[in-house]
Amino acid sequence: MISKNKLKELAAYRMQKRCDEEAVFVVEGVKMAAEAMASGFAIRTVCATKEWSSEYGARSQEFGEFFEVSEAELERLSNFKTPNKVWMLLERPDRYPLSTTHSPLVLALDKIQDPGNMGTLLRTADWFGIRHVVCSRDTVSCFNPKVVQSTMGAIFRTRVDYLDLPEWLADCGLPVYGASLQGEPLPAILTPLPADKVLVIGNESRGISDEVMAQVTHPVLIPNIGGTAESLNASVAAGILMYYLGGAGVKETL
Amino acid sequence: MISKNKLKELAAYRMQKRCDEEAVFVVEGVKMAAEAMASGFAIRTVCATKEWSSEYGARSQEFGEFFEVSEAELERLSNFKTPNKVWMLLERPDRYPLSTTHSPLVLALDKIQDPGNMGTLLRTADWFGIRHVVCSRDTVSCFNPKVVQSTMGAIFRTRVDYLDLPEWLADCGLPVYGASLQGEPLPAILTPLPADKVLVIGNESRGISDEVMAQVTHPVLIPNIGGTAESLNASVAAGILMYYLGGAGVKETL
Repeated sequence: MISKNKLKELAAYRMQKRCDEEAVFVVEGVKMAAEAMASGFAIRTVCATKEWSSEYGARSQEFGEFFEVSEAELERLSNFKTPNKVWMLLERPDRYPLSTTHSPLVLALDKIQDPGNMGTLLRTADWFGIRHVVCSRDTVSCFNPKVVQSTMGAIFRTRVDYLDLPEWLADCGLPVYGASLQGEPLPAILTPLPADKVLVIGNESRGISDEVMAQVTHPVLIPNIGGTAESLNASVAAGILMYYLGGAGVKETL
Repeated sequence: MISKNKLKELAAYRMQKRCDEEAVFVVEGVKMAAEAMASGFAIRTVCATKEWSSEYGARSQEFGEFFEVSEAELERLSNFKTPNKVWMLLERPDRYPLSTTHSPLVLALDKIQDPGNMGTLLRTADWFGIRHVVCSRDTVSCFNPKVVQSTMGAIFRTRVDYLDLPEWLADCGLPVYGASLQGEPLPAILTPLPADKVLVIGNESRGISDEVMAQVTHPVLIPNIGGTAESLNASVAAGILMYYLGGAGVKETL
């Protein structure tokens, strides 16, 4: 049971601003809830249907507070049209559990705007073992509910920092790769790659900004193999570059 | 000017069924319209705002019929919330202009459901010079308006056939690659690749179906490099495999 006042209070977290102010974020659905419970992140509030609580309710002592809610109440909290049994409010980590883990490839995101793309980028990074992502301050928040859901859990395993990207790149002391129409086609750099490096991915429609491009030391190009397409989808291009720079394919060819 | 009756008649093409019956499809927006005019496809009807026709109206003799419409009329025809100046009805080709072009890599799509994914797959295929795509009969239509728009023009350059996929694969006489959890990690097959081959991409959530997997002769796996993600997004995984099997990266390593 949940009181009307409590429900109203929690529904306010549908506003990103409210979540930002309190440094919390919302996670929804059975699969993401399981990831959250395994993550070590502090879970402040859980609202779930009878069905979910009959399975996981025994773990409610792990949560700051727990409420059983109806489908209609869950809909009121949810950011999605069809909520899936459980809604959770989590605290954003002060220090990431993984912040001391070394990430041989760091992903740098320059003004990524679309939440779906952002989520897919974090999910792909997670697949290729990238533990550290740095973002320009105007990149969409990784705690946006649509981003959180489309990371498929990567949000719990990746350190994401928002910072002055040109400045960070200038100071990082690492080779910086970035896609550019003036870049070297990928095969031409099939020479041994440096162990530690950064890959910059630019905005979906405008690409890498001038001030960030000025910090790219290794411009690269995904070869357009007899194709006539003007461009690749941003997430697809980023996936190919992460595979190439971080994946086993490259190591094998050295 | 367009009559009320004509507008009503054309608005009926918002129904996929109507388009299928007459073997036509709808293309919208300035960029896709330019691709359509360059494609050689027969353009039956064009409705455009004054702005578009002041620039392209001189070419109206290339169209079966041409109407200047208001923004409100265009909205009535459009499949999208914010139409972009022009709406076109095109005839589906009997024979693809490119049907005789050899495609060293053929893309085979098994039960792809999401129009956005389908469009991205065709766009990526186009980038890697794949000229021929074969689809299971229950794959989303390549003439679905959302697919057409998200191909970014690839629809005009790619032959797409719908057929009995297991049967086609059994008869094609080509090596068939497909992603499988039991597959060889990509680097292990960095041996010379056959010149002609097929790449199968499975359904977004269920992967390749059993009857199609039975025809896969070369199961492969994108290595999960120290990552913990459960899976890659379908379009991203497909992009990496197309790059690997069709792209220059591979040729360079032989």
